[in-house]
Amino acid sequence: MITVGILGGGQLARMMVLAGAPLGLRFVVFDPAADACAGQVAPLQVGGFDDTEALAAFAAKVDVVTFDFENVPAASAHWLAERKPVFPNPAALAVAQDRLSEKTLFQELGIALPAFADIRSHEELAAKVAEFGMPCILKTRRLGYDGKGQFRIRTDADIAAAWQALGAQVEKTGLILEGFVAFDREVSVVAVRGRDGEFRAWPLTTNWHVDGVLSASLAPAVLSAEQQATAIAYAQRVAERLDYVGVFALELFCRGEALLANEMAPRVHNSGHWTSDGAETSQFENHLRAVLGLPLGDTRVLGHACMLNWLGQMPDSKPVLAESAGHWHDYGKQARDGRKVGHANLRDDSALALAAALQRVGEALGRQAQVAPVVETLRGSVTPN
Amino acid sequence: MITVGILGGGQLARMMVLAGAPLGLRFVVFDPAADACAGQVAPLQVGGFDDTEALAAFAAKVDVVTFDFENVPAASAHWLAERKPVFPNPAALAVAQDRLSEKTLFQELGIALPAFADIRSHEELAAKVAEFGMPCILKTRRLGYDGKGQFRIRTDADIAAAWQALGAQVEKTGLILEGFVAFDREVSVVAVRGRDGEFRAWPLTTNWHVDGVLSASLAPAVLSAEQQATAIAYAQRVAERLDYVGVFALELFCRGEALLANEMAPRVHNSGHWTSDGAETSQFENHLRAVLGLPLGDTRVLGHACMLNWLGQMPDSKPVLAESAGHWHDYGKQARDGRKVGHANLRDDSALALAAALQRVGEALGRQAQVAPVVETLRGSVTPN
Ligand SMILES: Nc1ncnc2c1ncn2[C@@H]1O[C@H](COP(=O)(O)OP(=O)(O)OP(=O)(O)O)[C@@H](O)[C@H]1O
Ligand SMILES: Nc1ncnc2c1ncn2[C@@H]1O[C@H](COP(=O)(O)OP(=O)(O)OP(=O)(O)O)[C@@H](O)[C@H]1O
Repeated sequence: MITVGILGGGQLARMMVLAGAPLGLRFVVFDPAADACAGQVAPLQVGGFDDTEALAAFAAKVDVVTFDFENVPAASAHWLAERKPVFPNPAALAVAQDRLSEKTLFQELGIALPAFADIRSHEELAAKVAEFGMPCILKTRRLGYDGKGQFRIRTDADIAAAWQALGAQVEKTGLILEGFVAFDREVSVVAVRGRDGEFRAWPLTTNWHVDGVLSASLAPAVLSAEQQATAIAYAQRVAERLDYVGVFALELFCRGEALLANEMAPRVHNSGHWTSDGAETSQFENHLRAVLGLPLGDTRVLGHACMLNWLGQMPDSKPVLAESAGHWHDYGKQARDGRKVGHANLRDDSALALAAALQRVGEALGRQAQVAPVVETLRGSVTPN
Repeated sequence: MITVGILGGGQLARMMVLAGAPLGLRFVVFDPAADACAGQVAPLQVGGFDDTEALAAFAAKVDVVTFDFENVPAASAHWLAERKPVFPNPAALAVAQDRLSEKTLFQELGIALPAFADIRSHEELAAKVAEFGMPCILKTRRLGYDGKGQFRIRTDADIAAAWQALGAQVEKTGLILEGFVAFDREVSVVAVRGRDGEFRAWPLTTNWHVDGVLSASLAPAVLSAEQQATAIAYAQRVAERLDYVGVFALELFCRGEALLANEMAPRVHNSGHWTSDGAETSQFENHLRAVLGLPLGDTRVLGHACMLNWLGQMPDSKPVLAESAGHWHDYGKQARDGRKVGHANLRDDSALALAAALQRVGEALGRQAQVAPVVETLRGSVTPN
C-alpha cells in the first residue's frame, strides 16, 4: 500500500485523490487551512508550509510527496526531499516559482518569449520601460497567481503608479518587467514526464482569461501542425532540462504564427481540467502514474472538450448535467468572491454539437459572455462546405 | 450540501463515493466491518444492519439513503425510510432480495424465464425435479451471491445431496428450484431510472462467470436489435412496476434467439463496472444523479469496453496501464481467497485492437483463460472482408 503526500489541499489535491483511489493509493494532504477542500476526501495534516514539526508528522505518514500548490517554500521542499522522494524535484519547483529563473531557462533553451528584465529600483523600471516600449507589465517574480501581483504600464504616469503598487515587494518577491504581447489567443501545453523520462502531452488547449483568471478552455486548440509541434517541443525541452517528473503546464501566447512562452506551472493545471472527462487519461491520473513510476496513460482528446470555470459560487448543475456529455466538478468549497469553486466539462465528437450545447448552457445559466468566445472558436473551426 | 448515506461499505460504495464527490456530495457509509474498503474514502459508521442505534446515528448524518448491499434486512430499510428518503424504495429492494418474488414478478410482467418452483420439503424437491427434468438448480431464495447457496442437480443421487446441503436453509432463506438453461451466453442490462421516471439503459453487456462469479464483461454485447430491445423493455417494465429509482441490473441467459431472465440486482452491478472508463456516464454517477433527482447522463458506450475482475489478490497493474485505454480499479482490500479485490477496464474504438490489447494483458499476467472468451467474441464480432 502506497501513501502519497500532497502539499496543498485545494481542488487540485482533491481531484488527484479522486483519480488516485482507483490506483489503490492512499493520501495525506497538507494544508495550512483546517477546511481545505481536499480534506473532505483524504486525511488532512494542518500546518504552515514552513512548520517543520507538522512537515515531519506528514513525512512520517507518506511514501512519496507531490504538490497541489507551487509556492511551497523551496527550503521546505528540500527538507522533505531529504526524507522522502519528492516529485517534481525541489530544484524544478524552485525554477518554476520564480518568473525570472523560468524565463532565463526558456531563453537558454531557445524558447521564444516576450522581452523581460529583472527590476530592482524605480530607476531601473523607468529605463526598461523606455527600452521595451509600452504597454508592458510589472509583475512580482514570485508568489503571483491568477493575475495577482501584476501592474500594467500603458502611460508614463503608470510607471510611478506601478512602483507605488509593487515596489515594496522588491525585497520579498523580486520584480520582473515583461513586454506586453498583443496576442490573438492564449494556449497551453499540459504535459507529463515519467520517472523513466517518458514524455507525453495532451493536445494543445486554447484558454480564455477574465481579469487574469482562467474562464474557459477548449481542446484541441486549432493551430498549425508546426505550431503544435513547436509548443510541445518547448515543453519537452523544459521538462528534460529540469528532470521534471509529473504533470506541468506551459502557457504560451499566440500572435499570428508566433508562439511566445509566458510561464510554466509545476503541477496539474486548471487548463488541463477538461482531461477528466475529455481525454483517455486525466492529468490527475497521469500525474500520479508519473510520480509512482507507472506507465503513462494515453493523452488523446475524445472529440472536442471544453471546461468552464465557476468562480465565487456554484451555479445550478442541471443545465450542464442535461447535456449528453456534461460533467460537473464541485470542489466542496464555501462560496467566496472570485474563488475557484468548481467547473463544468462538456465534450462532443462534433465541434458544432459542442458549440450548441455550450450555447444552451450559457443561456440557461445567464453566462452567455463566458461561453461566447468558445462557441465562436468552435464554429469558426468548422470548414464550411 | 447534501450527504448521501450508503448501506454497505464495499467496492460499490467506494466507487459511488469517488463518482459522487465531483457532484459536490458528501457521504457516510454504513457497514458491519470496521475495515470496509469504502471507509478509506468516506466516513464510516460501523454497525450491524439490524442495529437500530447505529442506524439512527447514521440516519441523523445523512439526507438520503441508498445501498451498496442488497441484503440489508427489509425491516431496516423500512425503518430508515420512515426517517429519510431511501432509494431504491424498500419494497423494490424486498422483491429483488427474494428469488421467488422476483421471478413471480417477471412472470406477471410477461418476461420469459426458466421454470421455477418454491421448495419446502425433500418430497417437493424430488417431485419438481421430476417435472422440470435434469439438470436443474436448487438455490436459496434469499442471501445468495456470487453463486453461493446453489446446488446443481444432474443425477437422482444429487437430489438427496442437494437437500443435504441446503435443506437446513428452508426456514431461514427459503429454497427455489430452477430449470437449468444451457445458455450460449449470459448478458445483462444495466439501467437507471430517475425520480421523475426517466429511464436509460447502457448497451447490453456480455458476461462470463467462473464458479458462479463474474470473471469478465464486454460491451456492447453482439445481439440482434430485437433481442436488445426486448431485454431493455424487460428492464424498463420491472423498473416501472417497482417504481424503482437508481441503477439496477437485469441478468439474462441467451439461447439462440431466446432470452430468459435470471435475476435482478437492485444496485450498481459488477457487470456495469466497464462504464467507469467506457461510457459517457458511469453507472456510479448515474445512480447518484437518479437518487438526487438530477438529470441522467448519457449511457452510450465509447467503442468497445471490457472489464476483467480480479479475485483473491491484485495482479501487477503495469501491463494494463501500458495499454492505451487501460484503467485500473483497486478496491484497497486485503487479499483473501476468492474475494473481489479490483478490476481492470480496457477500451478501444476498434474491436480487433481491444482483442489484441486483452491478449497482451492475458499473456503478461498469465491470465490467458480469463481473456480468451472475450478475445474470441471480439474477433468473432468483426465481419471478415
Ligand atoms: N506579457 C504579457 N502580455 C500580455 N498579456 C499578459 C502578459 N502577462 C500576463 N498576461 C495576461 O494575464 C494573464 C495572467 O498572467 P500570468 O500567467 O503571468 O499570471 P499568473 O498570476 O501566474 O496566473 P496563473 O494563475 O494563470 O498562472 C495571462 O494569462 C494573460 O492573459
Ligand atoms: N437456471 C440456471 N441455468 C443455468 N445457469 C445458471 C442458472 N442459474 C445460475 N446459473 C449460473 O450461475 C451463475 C450465478 O447464478 P445467480 O446469478 O443465480 O447467482 P448469484 O449468487 O445471485 O450471483 P450474482 O452475484 O452474480 O448475482 C449465473 O450467472 C449462471 O452462470
